[in-house]
Amino acid sequence: MKILVINAGSSSLKYQLIDMETEAVLAKGACERIGIPGSKLTHKVSGKEDFVKETPIPEHKVAVELVMEALIDADHGVIKSTDEIDAVGHRVLHGGTVYCDSIVVNEDVKRIIREYFDLGPLHNPANLTGIEACEAAMPGKANVAVFDTAFGMAMPEKAYTYAIPHEYLEKYSIRRYGFHGTSHNFVSHEAIQFGALGDNAKVIVCHLGNGASISASIGGKCVDTSMGLTPLEGLIMGSRSGDIDPAVAQYICNKEGKDINEVLNIFNKQSGILGMSGGISTDFRDVQKAADEGNHLAKVALDAFAYRVAKYIGAYTAAMNGVDAIVFTAGVGENDARMRGQIMEYMGYLGAAIDEDINKASRGKEAVISTADSKVKVMVIPTNEELMIARDTANLTANL
Amino acid sequence: MKILVINAGSSSLKYQLIDMETEAVLAKGACERIGIPGSKLTHKVSGKEDFVKETPIPEHKVAVELVMEALIDADHGVIKSTDEIDAVGHRVLHGGTVYCDSIVVNEDVKRIIREYFDLGPLHNPANLTGIEACEAAMPGKANVAVFDTAFGMAMPEKAYTYAIPHEYLEKYSIRRYGFHGTSHNFVSHEAIQFGALGDNAKVIVCHLGNGASISASIGGKCVDTSMGLTPLEGLIMGSRSGDIDPAVAQYICNKEGKDINEVLNIFNKQSGILGMSGGISTDFRDVQKAADEGNHLAKVALDAFAYRVAKYIGAYTAAMNGVDAIVFTAGVGENDARMRGQIMEYMGYLGAAIDEDINKASRGKEAVISTADSKVKVMVIPTNEELMIARDTANLTANL
Repeated sequence: MKILVINAGSSSLKYQLIDMETEAVLAKGACERIGIPGSKLTHKVSGKEDFVKETPIPEHKVAVELVMEALIDADHGVIKSTDEIDAVGHRVLHGGTVYCDSIVVNEDVKRIIREYFDLGPLHNPANLTGIEACEAAMPGKANVAVFDTAFGMAMPEKAYTYAIPHEYLEKYSIRRYGFHGTSHNFVSHEAIQFGALGDNAKVIVCHLGNGASISASIGGKCVDTSMGLTPLEGLIMGSRSGDIDPAVAQYICNKEGKDINEVLNIFNKQSGILGMSGGISTDFRDVQKAADEGNHLAKVALDAFAYRVAKYIGAYTAAMNGVDAIVFTAGVGENDARMRGQIMEYMGYLGAAIDEDINKASRGKEAVISTADSKVKVMVIPTNEELMIARDTANLTANL
Repeated sequence: MKILVINAGSSSLKYQLIDMETEAVLAKGACERIGIPGSKLTHKVSGKEDFVKETPIPEHKVAVELVMEALIDADHGVIKSTDEIDAVGHRVLHGGTVYCDSIVVNEDVKRIIREYFDLGPLHNPANLTGIEACEAAMPGKANVAVFDTAFGMAMPEKAYTYAIPHEYLEKYSIRRYGFHGTSHNFVSHEAIQFGALGDNAKVIVCHLGNGASISASIGGKCVDTSMGLTPLEGLIMGSRSGDIDPAVAQYICNKEGKDINEVLNIFNKQSGILGMSGGISTDFRDVQKAADEGNHLAKVALDAFAYRVAKYIGAYTAAMNGVDAIVFTAGVGENDARMRGQIMEYMGYLGAAIDEDINKASRGKEAVISTADSKVKVMVIPTNEELMIARDTANLTANL
């Protein structure tokens, strides 16, 4: 069984073709600058040189057709015919309160994706365009929507309800949703398997990258997660503030004569470790380098990042009344041993200890980095959202 | 030594006269509706009937003069002459980044209080008016300013710095300050004494009332506290939202055509358990009653309140890498055994356990409510901000 995974942005379309027997990526690539001059397809097959095609890509349907051509090309293709593609899985940002799991796309599903344009204004329209492009280019082929919000739907009311007038939940569906759900779902389940934890293991997943979030789950079922109505809430990120007194927005609006959209744009794009460090970078490696060279603001930014993660681990341990495993994933989580060490320094009270040698040696591959007698298993588990999307798509379409 | 404690609001002035030898309250009362028709003084002396005087009080100076008259009155007074008042201690909301401790008022202190009008727009002007009224009515008497933000000044940079562009800290002093500092200071020190904890005890104080905040301190020195730039951040409160994705403010602004000040007013005055419960009340007793009668929203509001407190206790335990004592104070914290129990249900993983009988029997007085073998001491310690202000005032003026 072969599954095509699509992640459509407003002017891009990323894809992977995955063989479900081996879970190997047969080919992957991206169409960029869709609808913009200078558009191109980049197609990668393991062991071959990248195939790059610079050509006008006026719309997503054309992008999907280019992907199909590349996949069946005699030279750089990996399948003989698109008939070999059994189904297509799509990353969709927002399924609102409707979808707590992946689902085969029909007109109802598309209507709901459209209904949540307001809550996913950058992503949902693009995600829907990607689905419709696949429907047009590959009529009759099953499409599956895998929602980034689905994992968070398991949160109990006490965790997802904001302490604002109830009418805003009724009128506008304002509540906490959580994002990065596909990653948290994948990693929490992988951790249970790889760590040989029990089926009802209490797991905290720290998805630390340019976007960063953290989740608490019991047996893979979400108890709480740090992103909220939008992906702004929670941890400090590359350019996002995470948690902040909302009165800060008001104060800046009034001091600078800005409106709320301008200030929220600053909180989303000029804040996080970029803003704290005085503008050095959204990339943790750059900020770490500056800190090592004595830049005080860079050091405070990284200290505050680690501290915030540690506080969330503490909070989620309370939320679950205990924790069996703390798992690091995504760019920083998988590769930055020093940051993992800095975070874990706070966790001695849980009886959690990491083996510094194993920690340092662990980069981008599954590993248990805690000591043998640590009371909490600490792990690195690389995330793989595309594989999760492919698995869900395979499961939902196997018997169609 | 006798200390007069003053808490001046924009149209009110509360006072206590405290005998520092016994720390007994000799008299207390309030002037209300200052500058508004219908103003009056209410003066209370233990064992006597309240003395109420309805009279025009055009300004705070007149209020102070009325207080002095009442204190020395032959019938309901408690001192012979105002010469017996050694000094006056004032609650002042905001000392900015300048004052990390109480201080004897001089022109510099008044200038700083004035400089922070922007950050304490409702309180600092009134607090300064109270000081100036005392200076005018009792010339030559020492006044001491006790800042509600002073306790939070000990927070390290990683705890007080928001992840927004650094320039906002430089330009506008936008950072976390914390409030209820006088209460957290008093209660954390009392807990160390009453609980016979060590001098470097790690203490979490839960100040739970209509306004609610929580602090972590080591040896009485603040490590972190939940209120931020303003008293809006942190826990769910009677009418305040506490932590919330700032994008919620943006979303409501855009959906309802409101400006940020209108929405923040909703977050401050119509949110919290009042808003979550669909408008029942800011009073926990009313919301508890509704929950007991089957009101679902009321139950969610209380569950969410307890859950948020529990998460903060967990977070602050991580912040300090352990905790020796969890202390409940203020209206709900001192009197609501059920809420204390609900919060402590999350804390089993810390080896913390409360004795339900002792918990139920503890109302408004100092008590250890944890079991003998609990690994964390859990306490009720009534807060007493006035006494804290009086103590600081006595200490600072003893040798003047």
